[in-house]
Amino acid sequence: MGIIVQKFGGSSVATTEKLEKVCNHITKEFEKGNDVAVIVSAQGKTTDRLITEEKEITNSPCKREHDVLVSVGEQITISKLAMMLNDKGYKAISLTGWQLPIITDDNFGNAKIKSIKSETILDLFEKGYIVVIAGFQGINENGEITTLGRGGSDTTAVAIAASLKADKCDIYTDVDGIFTTDPSKVENAKKIDLISYDEMLELSSLGAKVLHNRCVEIGKKFDIPIVVKETGKENSTGTIVENSKYLENMEISGIAKDDNISRVTVMGLENKIGKTYKVFKLLAEHKINIDTIVQSFGESINKNLSFTIKTSDLAETLKVLEENKEYLTAREIIHFDNLSKVSIVGIGMTNRTGIAAKMFEALYEENINMHLISTSEIKITVLVNQDESDRAVKAIHNKFF
Amino acid sequence: MGIIVQKFGGSSVATTEKLEKVCNHITKEFEKGNDVAVIVSAQGKTTDRLITEEKEITNSPCKREHDVLVSVGEQITISKLAMMLNDKGYKAISLTGWQLPIITDDNFGNAKIKSIKSETILDLFEKGYIVVIAGFQGINENGEITTLGRGGSDTTAVAIAASLKADKCDIYTDVDGIFTTDPSKVENAKKIDLISYDEMLELSSLGAKVLHNRCVEIGKKFDIPIVVKETGKENSTGTIVENSKYLENMEISGIAKDDNISRVTVMGLENKIGKTYKVFKLLAEHKINIDTIVQSFGESINKNLSFTIKTSDLAETLKVLEENKEYLTAREIIHFDNLSKVSIVGIGMTNRTGIAAKMFEALYEENINMHLISTSEIKITVLVNQDESDRAVKAIHNKFF
Repeated sequence: MGIIVQKFGGSSVATTEKLEKVCNHITKEFEKGNDVAVIVSAQGKTTDRLITEEKEITNSPCKREHDVLVSVGEQITISKLAMMLNDKGYKAISLTGWQLPIITDDNFGNAKIKSIKSETILDLFEKGYIVVIAGFQGINENGEITTLGRGGSDTTAVAIAASLKADKCDIYTDVDGIFTTDPSKVENAKKIDLISYDEMLELSSLGAKVLHNRCVEIGKKFDIPIVVKETGKENSTGTIVENSKYLENMEISGIAKDDNISRVTVMGLENKIGKTYKVFKLLAEHKINIDTIVQSFGESINKNLSFTIKTSDLAETLKVLEENKEYLTAREIIHFDNLSKVSIVGIGMTNRTGIAAKMFEALYEENINMHLISTSEIKITVLVNQDESDRAVKAIHNKFF
Repeated sequence: MGIIVQKFGGSSVATTEKLEKVCNHITKEFEKGNDVAVIVSAQGKTTDRLITEEKEITNSPCKREHDVLVSVGEQITISKLAMMLNDKGYKAISLTGWQLPIITDDNFGNAKIKSIKSETILDLFEKGYIVVIAGFQGINENGEITTLGRGGSDTTAVAIAASLKADKCDIYTDVDGIFTTDPSKVENAKKIDLISYDEMLELSSLGAKVLHNRCVEIGKKFDIPIVVKETGKENSTGTIVENSKYLENMEISGIAKDDNISRVTVMGLENKIGKTYKVFKLLAEHKINIDTIVQSFGESINKNLSFTIKTSDLAETLKVLEENKEYLTAREIIHFDNLSKVSIVGIGMTNRTGIAAKMFEALYEENINMHLISTSEIKITVLVNQDESDRAVKAIHNKFF
């Protein structure tokens, strides 16, 4: 007997048949005597369709009105699901973001949750209701509709779980958990049974798109176990994301890959305080996002500064740097595109030697060149040519698993 | 310089091109220096589509959740329209029913408006905004979404006009006003320039489906002129529905027709107090709606009681009455189906003689039999065979106009 939060994504609620499966997951937990809060996304491609219609009107929609528009998708899902549960004889009630309410900041399209009135849900639990809540949406202090941006419904689910002090938050999706690497690319990819919040954060920031960072961060902060499972699969145990206490004995927990990366190197930058800062300030002013940064210090009066960016930002980056070469006192700007970032992540890494060596060995054996190496406490990232990246992931996976 | 309320129905906002025309009507009034509040319906067949999807789930949807579902259509329209106005350089802002808010009773699917917080709109006018409001929806005191039922957006518009003490409420639709009879049936049907609330009420209850009764009643109560116009038509004057002071010199203002009517007569009912009551109580218990009632009193101990119903209720009505013939002490139940109700409406009628005679003469000349006659202060209704009803309307129209 506890409080269970379940979240079902867009593909899990896409059709009436799929909603039936969702009902089964909900009523199963409810029949066990649990209080159940359910968070849902918009059905299938609903939000995409709304955005296509929006583009007919304008390419630069008023942000406030954009959120009014795209929030209807989740409202449709909650009403249908609550209706279906009622039809099966369960007491169920739907709540939009503003009805709960979920209070957010003013940042339309990418709002952050400030507070959730969990008493509303607890009162409905008290009355015997299954509570079906719209993900992705909230209201600001002004009573205006906001949306949470990418991964929004996951964030809603874990935030609600935190506010309810729920026993766990089940995230239902179309794969049965988190894998050591992309199972569609590497045949013997393994399902991870248990992973820590920190490892999950590294993996998701590295392009493993199962869980959005924001929801993992909230899970970590409030110590809510997040379970990733496949919708419709009976007795799935999925992957549990939780505190790292049990996880010390794993070498690495996963391998991630991110394509379409470019590396830019500013050569012969004057080795003086403030030069590095100037480069990044300039790029920030042009809204170019920098990923990994590596700076080599020599004993000379010059240094080389390398960093990675999305290939879509490459042209703009080169233009900005070339135009300011003199101001930056740089000798030359060189770049490589069509690169991929391949990373291994694992809490175990901090206490073990030889993990990096093992990774590099795997790449060496495959004759794959590394364009850049960057490490953190629980992560090692290398840049490789994009056309060699799948082979790189496979080689590393075979070495470790 | 005043306050103008404009309402655009589902077909007027069905596509992006149509929304452009709607923008023109709005900005034209705004450019004159008026404050403008706009009420919109769901686009085209949006609500029908949602109901089709709902039927996939259940044929007896939970009423609360039904309203959560069907209210999204208007939310889509307000965001798109506000977006489009912003895109054209106007300050516009959308409001849902709960944002305004429009407080209603608890009657999901057919809620009545209890109050409107017009200060919200007036504050936005003060800040220079065009205010775009979702029709058809509100919230109850509990914060649950309600919808107003048929004709709901018209009702929202006139109620908002009343709460703002607006100069007028323009109802934009796909015909240019209200006609003396259905222009698709009678070639020389004439547009009515001016009509009183009471006449409009009679016409709309008689099947002229331009304005819903509820909105006309509110217009009458708060003395808000309602103007019915065609969307996209330049310089249309439409039809003005307002107080009757100017209208004394019109003979009749319109002719309405309602098909699929049946007449039932309970013959030989004992002429005692309570017998008529028993008939209608019985039918009310079976949720059968009675329209016109005519009772003939003779000097005998028996009376005949006739009334009209929708033909769709005929079988049930006959079954109920036959089963209770003894209880009602009725001799025989007879009926005619395939009838139409044809009515003439006009405030002028009260002060003039011969209107009824003129109507009956028109029918006599066409050799059309009347199955029932019923009159009120501003209305004369006759029942005719449905296959003669178009001819009846045409004949009466030619007689009067």
